[in-house]
Amino acid sequence: MPELATFGETMLRLSPPGDEPVETAGTFEVHAAGAESNVAVAAQRLGVESTWLSKLPESPPGRRVLAALRQHGVEPAVVLTEEGRQGTYYLESADPPRGRTVTYDREGAAVRTATAAELPTGRIERADVFHTTGITPALSATLATTTADLLELAQEADTTTAFDLNYRSKLWSPEAARETVTDLLDLVDRFVVADRDAERVLGLTGSPVETAERLDADHDFETVVVTRGDEGAVAVHDGQTHEQPAVPAGNAHPVGTGDAFVGGYLASRLQGGSVPDALAYGTATAALKRTVPGDAAVVTPAAVERALADATGGIER
Amino acid sequence: MPELATFGETMLRLSPPGDEPVETAGTFEVHAAGAESNVAVAAQRLGVESTWLSKLPESPPGRRVLAALRQHGVEPAVVLTEEGRQGTYYLESADPPRGRTVTYDREGAAVRTATAAELPTGRIERADVFHTTGITPALSATLATTTADLLELAQEADTTTAFDLNYRSKLWSPEAARETVTDLLDLVDRFVVADRDAERVLGLTGSPVETAERLDADHDFETVVVTRGDEGAVAVHDGQTHEQPAVPAGNAHPVGTGDAFVGGYLASRLQGGSVPDALAYGTATAALKRTVPGDAAVVTPAAVERALADATGGIER
Amino acid sequence: MPELATFGETMLRLSPPGDEPVETAGTFEVHAAGAESNVAVAAQRLGVESTWLSKLPESPPGRRVLAALRQHGVEPAVVLTEEGRQGTYYLESADPPRGRTVTYDREGAAVRTATAAELPTGRIERADVFHTTGITPALSATLATTTADLLELAQEADTTTAFDLNYRSKLWSPEAARETVTDLLDLVDRFVVADRDAERVLGLTGSPVETAERLDADHDFETVVVTRGDEGAVAVHDGQTHEQPAVPAGNAHPVGTGDAFVGGYLASRLQGGSVPDALAYGTATAALKRTVPGDAAVVTPAAVERALADATGGIER
Amino acid sequence: MPELATFGETMLRLSPPGDEPVETAGTFEVHAAGAESNVAVAAQRLGVESTWLSKLPESPPGRRVLAALRQHGVEPAVVLTEEGRQGTYYLESADPPRGRTVTYDREGAAVRTATAAELPTGRIERADVFHTTGITPALSATLATTTADLLELAQEADTTTAFDLNYRSKLWSPEAARETVTDLLDLVDRFVVADRDAERVLGLTGSPVETAERLDADHDFETVVVTRGDEGAVAVHDGQTHEQPAVPAGNAHPVGTGDAFVGGYLASRLQGGSVPDALAYGTATAALKRTVPGDAAVVTPAAVERALADATGGIER
Amino acid sequence: MPELATFGETMLRLSPPGDEPVETAGTFEVHAAGAESNVAVAAQRLGVESTWLSKLPESPPGRRVLAALRQHGVEPAVVLTEEGRQGTYYLESADPPRGRTVTYDREGAAVRTATAAELPTGRIERADVFHTTGITPALSATLATTTADLLELAQEADTTTAFDLNYRSKLWSPEAARETVTDLLDLVDRFVVADRDAERVLGLTGSPVETAERLDADHDFETVVVTRGDEGAVAVHDGQTHEQPAVPAGNAHPVGTGDAFVGGYLASRLQGGSVPDALAYGTATAALKRTVPGDAAVVTPAAVERALADATGGIER
Amino acid sequence: MPELATFGETMLRLSPPGDEPVETAGTFEVHAAGAESNVAVAAQRLGVESTWLSKLPESPPGRRVLAALRQHGVEPAVVLTEEGRQGTYYLESADPPRGRTVTYDREGAAVRTATAAELPTGRIERADVFHTTGITPALSATLATTTADLLELAQEADTTTAFDLNYRSKLWSPEAARETVTDLLDLVDRFVVADRDAERVLGLTGSPVETAERLDADHDFETVVVTRGDEGAVAVHDGQTHEQPAVPAGNAHPVGTGDAFVGGYLASRLQGGSVPDALAYGTATAALKRTVPGDAAVVTPAAVERALADATGGIER
Repeated sequence: MPELATFGETMLRLSPPGDEPVETAGTFEVHAAGAESNVAVAAQRLGVESTWLSKLPESPPGRRVLAALRQHGVEPAVVLTEEGRQGTYYLESADPPRGRTVTYDREGAAVRTATAAELPTGRIERADVFHTTGITPALSATLATTTADLLELAQEADTTTAFDLNYRSKLWSPEAARETVTDLLDLVDRFVVADRDAERVLGLTGSPVETAERLDADHDFETVVVTRGDEGAVAVHDGQTHEQPAVPAGNAHPVGTGDAFVGGYLASRLQGGSVPDALAYGTATAALKRTVPGDAAVVTPAAVERALADATGGIER
Repeated sequence: MPELATFGETMLRLSPPGDEPVETAGTFEVHAAGAESNVAVAAQRLGVESTWLSKLPESPPGRRVLAALRQHGVEPAVVLTEEGRQGTYYLESADPPRGRTVTYDREGAAVRTATAAELPTGRIERADVFHTTGITPALSATLATTTADLLELAQEADTTTAFDLNYRSKLWSPEAARETVTDLLDLVDRFVVADRDAERVLGLTGSPVETAERLDADHDFETVVVTRGDEGAVAVHDGQTHEQPAVPAGNAHPVGTGDAFVGGYLASRLQGGSVPDALAYGTATAALKRTVPGDAAVVTPAAVERALADATGGIER
Repeated sequence: MPELATFGETMLRLSPPGDEPVETAGTFEVHAAGAESNVAVAAQRLGVESTWLSKLPESPPGRRVLAALRQHGVEPAVVLTEEGRQGTYYLESADPPRGRTVTYDREGAAVRTATAAELPTGRIERADVFHTTGITPALSATLATTTADLLELAQEADTTTAFDLNYRSKLWSPEAARETVTDLLDLVDRFVVADRDAERVLGLTGSPVETAERLDADHDFETVVVTRGDEGAVAVHDGQTHEQPAVPAGNAHPVGTGDAFVGGYLASRLQGGSVPDALAYGTATAALKRTVPGDAAVVTPAAVERALADATGGIER
Repeated sequence: MPELATFGETMLRLSPPGDEPVETAGTFEVHAAGAESNVAVAAQRLGVESTWLSKLPESPPGRRVLAALRQHGVEPAVVLTEEGRQGTYYLESADPPRGRTVTYDREGAAVRTATAAELPTGRIERADVFHTTGITPALSATLATTTADLLELAQEADTTTAFDLNYRSKLWSPEAARETVTDLLDLVDRFVVADRDAERVLGLTGSPVETAERLDADHDFETVVVTRGDEGAVAVHDGQTHEQPAVPAGNAHPVGTGDAFVGGYLASRLQGGSVPDALAYGTATAALKRTVPGDAAVVTPAAVERALADATGGIER
Repeated sequence: MPELATFGETMLRLSPPGDEPVETAGTFEVHAAGAESNVAVAAQRLGVESTWLSKLPESPPGRRVLAALRQHGVEPAVVLTEEGRQGTYYLESADPPRGRTVTYDREGAAVRTATAAELPTGRIERADVFHTTGITPALSATLATTTADLLELAQEADTTTAFDLNYRSKLWSPEAARETVTDLLDLVDRFVVADRDAERVLGLTGSPVETAERLDADHDFETVVVTRGDEGAVAVHDGQTHEQPAVPAGNAHPVGTGDAFVGGYLASRLQGGSVPDALAYGTATAALKRTVPGDAAVVTPAAVERALADATGGIER
Repeated sequence: MPELATFGETMLRLSPPGDEPVETAGTFEVHAAGAESNVAVAAQRLGVESTWLSKLPESPPGRRVLAALRQHGVEPAVVLTEEGRQGTYYLESADPPRGRTVTYDREGAAVRTATAAELPTGRIERADVFHTTGITPALSATLATTTADLLELAQEADTTTAFDLNYRSKLWSPEAARETVTDLLDLVDRFVVADRDAERVLGLTGSPVETAERLDADHDFETVVVTRGDEGAVAVHDGQTHEQPAVPAGNAHPVGTGDAFVGGYLASRLQGGSVPDALAYGTATAALKRTVPGDAAVVTPAAVERALADATGGIER
């Protein structure tokens, strides 16, 4: 089985049932939530042996995170520590105009002090792909260094690197993000970016196709993918541009959709899929995710293929 | 009060709350679910004294089924046995592209060995209508024989017979269904079939009106009804064709809609309604069912009439 | 902080989870529900010191009501009594054609014997605005008198009076409502009425603008507001007519929307907003309420302003 | 199958989950609760065809009561009415010193106006036993008359009458109870009374055996049973005194224990059991009830026999 | 009404339902939990106008704390801030040997930077009693200073000061606690300490009576109270020693028992109770708390008096 | 890390919340439950790399089992199949005399056809210990053969074998069990048996010590352990007899206690513990299990050591 290693923070997400406000909630539903572990979960479920490197507090909430990831077959490779806390966030969801409210409570998380020296980096060296996102370097100066160190280490080990820009305005400014991320891009083989992040952070204001082609021109990526929310994705690879429409889907549980896309896309590539195959696979995984509570894409290869068949069918008829 | 007798299997339906997957569910909601008992529930609630003949294990899950039906006033007439299990099915529901997943777990159910000799058939003989569906003969060779025996016994007792083709692709092939059902149709007075089943099983590819008229021409039915999913129903009776549009409704809980239609249709006929009245009544019952969790149509005559008035009103104004 | 006093009945609302029928429900969700206390909750949350005068049984369900209102910062000013019960109502909600069913169980409520003499009317005298609705005088002859007494008392104390007609067909006929309410209108400064109630009770069949202008012409109101369901509101004030479109919103929890409008409208006025400002503020508060379970508008000034900005933005761009 | 008819009020019981106070509860669990219908449920489940006569509002909460009783096979024989409400009560349960708190909300219940003339009394006439309790005449003057009328009617029809004194201090004083009940006792064949009620209401201060023998001496009962809380029961029948120790049991759900005793006792007698047999059967049914949530004794003949065998075994060893 | 002001941190307590481990929990129950606000809740419910001074993040979880306290009538007097987080803790409860596990997650809480200068100290000056505990100075150096400042400010305003030592081994060492607390004791009028804390922190190893008398001899307290877990309390006041046994109670929800004692004790004193009265009142309040889920003592004066009557009765017989 | 391989059936356990009967349950809680996977879970959590060999249906309920085990870090090594169902059982729990009721629904489970040839037996060969129980050969003739085959295969690979007799009267008679198990005992190194099973199945009627010594004398075991319910365990190893008292514990969740003992015992041995160490470790693990909902022993090495320290402490004082 091909192998994927990821690195980043995973929080406990605390969300009132239904559209109840946090202020009046009697209970919170508990999910594990982290961009990189979400990718690992999706990829693992779709046939890739996946691990997630991180640092967690040795505590019941820390173990709650481990259990949540293991349940999907992901094998966490974490440093356990007595220092630092388990990050959380409060998620409140409702129809507009109330919408979705995220309250981060991730200050002081144990992961913020994680260094390449203490992490089990052997898992990155033996992996086929190493993936992380722009959230990780935003969390602390240490993590910015660690992110760069791990990408370098992967490159040296001939492990393909993947990186999703994943800009979070609650963590840093576009300028700070641009400065840090720009330095990292030289270390990235497969780059993924949402078109709105490409605009906000990288200043690329063209169409998704233009953005993807510009990014391809300006960097030495193996592949660049620009995602378009509900509307699908564009990739440039080997001089070719590939466009993939979105698979129609409900939107009950949008959190984690982007990670599901990346997980599906990497899983397909790792199992020999072409770039267009992988775009389609990622798009279908993302569409399925929108229907699943929590952050994790509880999908199966069969479900992804069914979603693809229906979508294709819908177009062909 | 007019009387209805039904015969078939009732399962326990196990469904995770909301759109949670079975794989990650901490709890299952429990409902009783069976096409024929669903019809009995709807008819009982709409003014018909209804019974349900079957065979159940003498066990807590078997008693769970009895309690669920009695709650609506249906009087079960069942053989209790130490042999065989209580059938169940797992139902997972989500928006597309995930959609609805049914995992049957009904192998080895106690009902599969039920014979006419052991069942309390007096309830069929004294009933005004006896109803069963194409699911029952699909479950076992014994049940195929029992189904035929009971329909014959009803005919001999001058009990009107009703039959809903209800094709289930997870139980048998269209060919097997056609072979078994064709033999039964001579014993049927009121035949109900969904247009897609008429096509798949009976090979009738015309419009619903054409299908209904062809079925009427080829058989000696008192009435034939072809249902059209959300779109209503067509009946041919006494040489006349009647078309009934659907009552607009949400679609939160579609499972059991067809049975609610039949329950409402038979209830109306049994209380003196004309065929067009009964089509309208069945259609409104089905529309209400789509809004009720579980398999049972938790309706009242007043609610059905309100739904009909609104639907008619909407058209007339 | 400006002060608001309200007077009326608050019930315990018992509602099955989701779209479960009352008949099959294993649990009821519990909320406090009353038009006037709903207004107090919304206004309190939006920056107005609000109280609610009433009479409650000295009992656990009576205390349940107090806790529900205090939770939002409203300070109840109630007479506790050993006589009379805590009113309740059963609320069943589903998509059409089942729709929403209200079963009142408010006969014999303790509040029905409340008199001005026993209530802590000092709270009305020191308030800036006193608000009640047409539900209160419908509940008993005593309460009809008390309503008039309190409005008079407010006028004498130079407390601005506000009144929402709020016609309830399950409590009285349009004729009875008209007779009682007409006598009260001379005591009202800020009158609010839904356009369908203006037609049913007051016989005003024109457009909302016509209705508002007619009401303004016929009475000596400081302001008259006619609300139009999802469609916004019209006010006439100081010889000028102001129209306010609705803020687009989901409709998951419509109960209490009108009260949220009044709460937002009065809160804005009490904090120096102009009539158009207040209409906008009320409309946004109402839109937010539609997304919150229960009767209470769990809003914040920031959320209202965000909703307004989005709505305005949508129109201006 | 032998037949039992009962008459009385059944309320909806609203209880917070676990030991949560009503004041802070977000949900209430819903159960049907009435002394006489509890007896009918126990007897029906133990092999007696049981009905319950009453008067209910035609409303969702009224239908909730019907569904709860039908679920156990009891066939309600009720008058449905537009007048009067569905009685409820709030039950809060905790360890000492908080203990159990009952808040009745049964004023104005539809049943309070029920007369013998409107009830389906044919069910009493054809029954083998007719049962009611001292709660019923406490509810209204009309019901006091109706209770007497029904007991007389039963006597005239040669239906054995059973009556459980069941004193409720929240409904009337011991003196009022004594006056009303004394008049009824001439109409009673099988009298059941808790020893503490015999003392409080009837002024009998001796041991349970003395109380039972005194009651037997002073009246013309077929059988008199004095129950002793957890400690069992004493019967006098045909000049003989029978003592029955309690079956050891947990006490998680004591509400309804006395009714379970009566249901088991009558079921045994109706199926040919001797008085000592019936005492044992009733005691075991009561012990099982203490372990079942809600008011209803969800028992089976097999479970009762197992409980009896264990209890006997415990004594024999 | 007498007035009480308190100061300290209130956390959100996250606890799995029942005895589920945090590691496998799908939901957390949410309660507000803080020693000083617990005291305010108990005192408010028992007839004292109570406030709680603190500093909270302006966020949904911060508002959740406010709502929880307001629900009981406590009026929070808090500084809202954009800096710092809402502290939480995870509580896991089970029978021995698993027992109860507390995982604090209170690092970085907004309250840790609270200074006397920014708090609404007018509430302390006008109060009759100001209360805080040894938890507060343990949380940060700033809070140690603030605690001393507020006690001084109270003394200057002639507000009686109350202080519960409340040692928390997860926050500081006994030595650190002793050093900080010793400096505060000169500012305290009413001192409360658990006997095990008196031993661990203050090195007083005698019996509770000896400990109380030694504390009284060594300091200038108005009253000193030593609590003995389930076993009651000892007070020395005005040269007299008073012993109070515990009220027997279940132990389903022990968290918050000590705070309930203090709340009841202060409420009684503030309403004119003697020291023995107040000990009894506090003990009964604590007994009731053990039966209530969450940290708050959801009690009423009537329930406390009932518990006292039962306990006294038990002794007198 | 040492390695453990286990083999057997894992069911989905369906249990109503609390002490609700199956017959009236609206929901079932879902847990994975199997003697051998329970052992794997306990051992994995206590430091042993554990796997579980089995055969599961390729279906949502089959995946539910996988997720449940993976959550604890166990790596399932299963054959997925389209044939056969996912076994379940219904568990109803209450105080006596109702007690605990198990209704197996495991007929036709996919595992019943599992053969050594199709299973990934490499996992057994490379493990340090292979464990199975007497439940497995009771399930089908095929599984009886497979059990013997796997034990032989383990022996040949120098993998230590462990076997827990685990007699289930609902699966076979004591005679059938004795016949099958006796043949297997020659292949077993570490034998575990409950004293009541030793009596029922093996006819050994002495004290646990006598039973253990007799078993040691009659077979060629490395170690024999006889467990005594709540009372601890006795081992004979290397000619020495070791007695271990039970760790005092609540009994809220007894199902799975025996498996927790075996898991703890094997984990200790596999990590170098002596036989007395392992008995103590197993006993503490079992005590903790009694406090955890579900079948799995959600323990940590720290919790086991704490339980041991407390128990020892309790004895030493």
